[in-house]
Amino acid sequence: MGLPLHPSKNTMNIKITLPDQSVREFPKGSSPMDVAKSISEGLARNVLAAKVDGEIQDLNRPLEQDAQVTLLTWNDADGKNTMWHSSAHLMAEALEFYYPTVKFWVGPPVENGFYYDVDFGGIAFSADDLKKIEDKMAELAKQGNPYVRKEMSKADAIQYFTERNDPYKLDLLSNLEDGKITFYTQGNFTDLCRGPHIPNTSHIKAIKLTNVAGAYWKNDSNNPMLTRIYGITFPKKSELEAYLTMVEEAKKRDHRKIGKEMEIFTFDDDVGPGLPLWLPNGGVLIEELERLAKKTEAVAGYKRVRTPHLAKESMYLTSGHLPYYADSMYPPMEFEGEKYYLKAMNCPHHHKIFKEMNLSYRDLPLRLAEYGTCYRYEQSGELFGLMRVRQLQMNDAHIYCTKEQFADEFNAVNDMYLKYFRIFGIEKYVMRFSTHEPSKLGQKYVDNAALWLETEDMVRNVLIESKIPYVEVADEGAFYGPKIDVQVWSAIGREFTLATNQVDFAVPARFGLTFRNAKNEMETPICIHRAPLGTHERFIGFLIEHYAGNFPLWLAPEQIAILPISDKFNGYAKKVLQVLINSDLRGLVDDRDEKIGKKIRDAEMKKIPYMLIIGEKEEQENSVSVRQHGKGDQGSLLVQEFVDKMQAEIKALLSV
Amino acid sequence: MGLPLHPSKNTMNIKITLPDQSVREFPKGSSPMDVAKSISEGLARNVLAAKVDGEIQDLNRPLEQDAQVTLLTWNDADGKNTMWHSSAHLMAEALEFYYPTVKFWVGPPVENGFYYDVDFGGIAFSADDLKKIEDKMAELAKQGNPYVRKEMSKADAIQYFTERNDPYKLDLLSNLEDGKITFYTQGNFTDLCRGPHIPNTSHIKAIKLTNVAGAYWKNDSNNPMLTRIYGITFPKKSELEAYLTMVEEAKKRDHRKIGKEMEIFTFDDDVGPGLPLWLPNGGVLIEELERLAKKTEAVAGYKRVRTPHLAKESMYLTSGHLPYYADSMYPPMEFEGEKYYLKAMNCPHHHKIFKEMNLSYRDLPLRLAEYGTCYRYEQSGELFGLMRVRQLQMNDAHIYCTKEQFADEFNAVNDMYLKYFRIFGIEKYVMRFSTHEPSKLGQKYVDNAALWLETEDMVRNVLIESKIPYVEVADEGAFYGPKIDVQVWSAIGREFTLATNQVDFAVPARFGLTFRNAKNEMETPICIHRAPLGTHERFIGFLIEHYAGNFPLWLAPEQIAILPISDKFNGYAKKVLQVLINSDLRGLVDDRDEKIGKKIRDAEMKKIPYMLIIGEKEEQENSVSVRQHGKGDQGSLLVQEFVDKMQAEIKALLSV
Repeated sequence: MGLPLHPSKNTMNIKITLPDQSVREFPKGSSPMDVAKSISEGLARNVLAAKVDGEIQDLNRPLEQDAQVTLLTWNDADGKNTMWHSSAHLMAEALEFYYPTVKFWVGPPVENGFYYDVDFGGIAFSADDLKKIEDKMAELAKQGNPYVRKEMSKADAIQYFTERNDPYKLDLLSNLEDGKITFYTQGNFTDLCRGPHIPNTSHIKAIKLTNVAGAYWKNDSNNPMLTRIYGITFPKKSELEAYLTMVEEAKKRDHRKIGKEMEIFTFDDDVGPGLPLWLPNGGVLIEELERLAKKTEAVAGYKRVRTPHLAKESMYLTSGHLPYYADSMYPPMEFEGEKYYLKAMNCPHHHKIFKEMNLSYRDLPLRLAEYGTCYRYEQSGELFGLMRVRQLQMNDAHIYCTKEQFADEFNAVNDMYLKYFRIFGIEKYVMRFSTHEPSKLGQKYVDNAALWLETEDMVRNVLIESKIPYVEVADEGAFYGPKIDVQVWSAIGREFTLATNQVDFAVPARFGLTFRNAKNEMETPICIHRAPLGTHERFIGFLIEHYAGNFPLWLAPEQIAILPISDKFNGYAKKVLQVLINSDLRGLVDDRDEKIGKKIRDAEMKKIPYMLIIGEKEEQENSVSVRQHGKGDQGSLLVQEFVDKMQAEIKALLSV
Repeated sequence: MGLPLHPSKNTMNIKITLPDQSVREFPKGSSPMDVAKSISEGLARNVLAAKVDGEIQDLNRPLEQDAQVTLLTWNDADGKNTMWHSSAHLMAEALEFYYPTVKFWVGPPVENGFYYDVDFGGIAFSADDLKKIEDKMAELAKQGNPYVRKEMSKADAIQYFTERNDPYKLDLLSNLEDGKITFYTQGNFTDLCRGPHIPNTSHIKAIKLTNVAGAYWKNDSNNPMLTRIYGITFPKKSELEAYLTMVEEAKKRDHRKIGKEMEIFTFDDDVGPGLPLWLPNGGVLIEELERLAKKTEAVAGYKRVRTPHLAKESMYLTSGHLPYYADSMYPPMEFEGEKYYLKAMNCPHHHKIFKEMNLSYRDLPLRLAEYGTCYRYEQSGELFGLMRVRQLQMNDAHIYCTKEQFADEFNAVNDMYLKYFRIFGIEKYVMRFSTHEPSKLGQKYVDNAALWLETEDMVRNVLIESKIPYVEVADEGAFYGPKIDVQVWSAIGREFTLATNQVDFAVPARFGLTFRNAKNEMETPICIHRAPLGTHERFIGFLIEHYAGNFPLWLAPEQIAILPISDKFNGYAKKVLQVLINSDLRGLVDDRDEKIGKKIRDAEMKKIPYMLIIGEKEEQENSVSVRQHGKGDQGSLLVQEFVDKMQAEIKALLSV
């Protein structure tokens, strides 16, 4: 009581604060590796890099003053990235072994692994050559060569690369400041590099080079084409195997492939890249998702609005999206002396509605929901199926509330996420809570330290109390407030960013939004931006992979295939279909002149959840013979019994 | 048999074909008035003008050859317009009586009445002066002065107006061809005028001058301001009275006024003119209309799609909308060397989906539905509340079918209209069937005479056989095929164009749409464009007037107001509300600290269909005391009984 937990015994000691807010003392000059060793030998064996006061560093860099330290392992995104960046250096070493004259441009980590852009100087290199590079990398990795950092003056660095006649590294150097130039060496390979790196190559236990492609130098088609070699590495062989299995499975479940086979969506040259056309089967998915969202939101007290897909420039100047966000918006349409922009987000329109409604504290929280379609400009090269598009049909809503209401409202938002996770069988998820960085207030972040801390505390408390899995990431908040990215994993273990929530304490004031509080004063509300089902585009892309096209009954584009055993029963089949349709079910009649066996096989191929076999007995009894996809015969039911069964099953799927 | 019905006895006779296709013979040089007299004296008294081979003419113009003749009365739009145009001349005569120096620009008929643009040359004229003009018009009308037509050479006409120092009529003359210049005189007033006119002024029995406004000459703000005087006339005093009553009632029911009072929609300067923001109450109307449309369309075998709100220029060049329709579209957004346009119609996107689906005759008809939002550029001056907007949320669908399927499909479309008319209590309606004009093939109309006649016959046959009220209008078809405008009358008797259907036999070919027919050949489908609920904007504007804001239960933004008799019962009230919401009903709790009498009065004022009074007895019994808007106490019900009653009532309203 009154004494510090780790009293300072030595004025040359420094205090290291760990992520759990515990503080340990170390002699000045200790390294993050020393910190790791002080915790456990196991950690010391697995740690790959450290975050020191927000900056990722090598593990052996000395700590000269009190600091916040996070030790990064393979389980941290930054730990992975460090290992993959080090793996790029390892690949470069192997390449230099076989091709001593190659020159290197840059070798960053990417979403899954790393690449290096290489100038082979005319020497042929193809996918056939990857195996020998992989083998050499494995051999070099086993040597456990340390990654050694060396500071160098700009002049020396220029001399080094001038002697080596390397225009690429000289180009990189030209943009670097003297005093901040470092080299890294492992084994026989030395590179100009900012770092950080893993301690030594022995961490790299499993290696796969995945692809060779052309890439223009600096992404400019006027420049020469370099060779980009992609790879991925792991600290365990079993992880590489699991990854390759997942990639293989993901290929089979590729949403572009299944989307085409199942006639869910298409693109058209006359419409434009990144602008999907949703075919009738995709239309069903969209309508069912919206029906679920609207019902869920109605029960949760949301009110629906509709707003135009464009607004004048002045709106986006007020919101602050212009001019800063202009590159991500479509160019304006100009007429009547005004510029109109397609909306890239729904919030400004909703703010206008809040303002028009002229509310008091008794009317809050106000939850305005809209499946608003936004348009964002993405570079053509960035477009990818439904995952990167230029049109976003967003499950959007904005909750305007008082500070006192925030915890309940944010909790309710999280409950809605959890409900959806249950409905869609999403078993692994995490909330990625991004906060501000105090040194960047006024630049990257709205300059109001007190409000940042207060809002972040409110969010953190809800996350902790609700026991929802979350990780906290410093310096990745939005400009206007803390951000929560919702990460989910599909059935085959691929990670997707499903949606983003934002807590906005700044923009409502820019729009002059106020409510009359209990003291009869005008007060500015907090605004929670949330979109649990993300956008139709990305979410349906995710669902196609997640279900491999085997959509659950309530979502399946065709729920029931009615299969008459001969032409004679087509009339009765159509009557049954109309009963189904009138009962909000979806079906089709296969009235082709085919054998029943063929009709059943085709319906099974099309993954239709239920098949109804229809013949003389069924017509006489007003019944159907039920067959379930992948499960076979389920016996006979009266038509109305079957309808009741379907409706009960759908209700059960949605009431989890 | 073999003999003509009215055998020609005289080679100087001509054959006049009437609208019922009966043929009568008249001596050459007979007038349409002679035709009227031959039918009945009553008709001769009421007829106002005639349509001769598609051209509207004076009744006393001689008929020189065989012709199609339609006699126009007050019940025909063209009859009304002729009388209103003649009324403008009558007003000019009265104005000239009091202000001999005035000069006149143009005096056309408009939607309700007529106006004349007048240059008073500095003499003051205001709304106070209208009464004396009205009185003079009535006096002149009683004189029964004939409208006398006189042809004049251009030289004589120029001399006439030069002498009168009339720059306006000289300006009009400058655009007229010699040989086609006519003057009309009634009483003491003569005007340059193409006509036609009613026989004499005695038809004008009731007169109301309604407004005085400024109007720039030729609608150009660089020109001098003229005085525009509006008026309306009728053939009966009782009709004027009914009209004035309707105008008065329409003012009370003005959708802009009620839309603001009920917080249905608003406009915002930062969003832009003609782009409504739909507040939560408007959101309910939209969602309920869409729910109705989607259910109705699902049962009728439609499939829903979703398409982007823009497309490349190439799409609209294919459809033919560009360059001809460019003025009605938003200007393009240009990037990546392409022009992108906001869609002004959904059809091209749907055509692309049809094409992608690669269908055979077994898959037709294909009915693609979408509540697609279109954007059209209207001049700012043309914008009017929800009635003329720049954003159109359209109840759109396109039916692709074979010729053999056309009659069934078009009949089904009409049945859907009739169902909606019953649901919305629309008692008066007419289908306005617009056909082509053979002489304009290749200019105003796609140049395929046979297809026009065939398609028009198909449409006409369905209209006749289904006994749906319709009128046929020549020379008003769309470029691509015949058009059916659906005219409806609101509860107070105002006419609205609700929707337009088109039968399109040309554009599918432009898009290369085909299906494989039973003979295994590629065939082009017919496309029916239909939108029975029009656009949300116009239809909700209509409904607000039609219901005067008293929306039926299923559509009412707030269906049920829960009124606790004191604070003690707010908890129970909220529990009841959640039961209602979970049952797809909409309600609110009035938990203000007010007397129950005041709460009831306020709920009645807000036109909420049901009120639930809640006190100790209700809480103990889990019941509610039901009060119906405008009908008072309805007794007590258990909460679940009340829910069942509501759901049954809604189902009944929608199952007519």
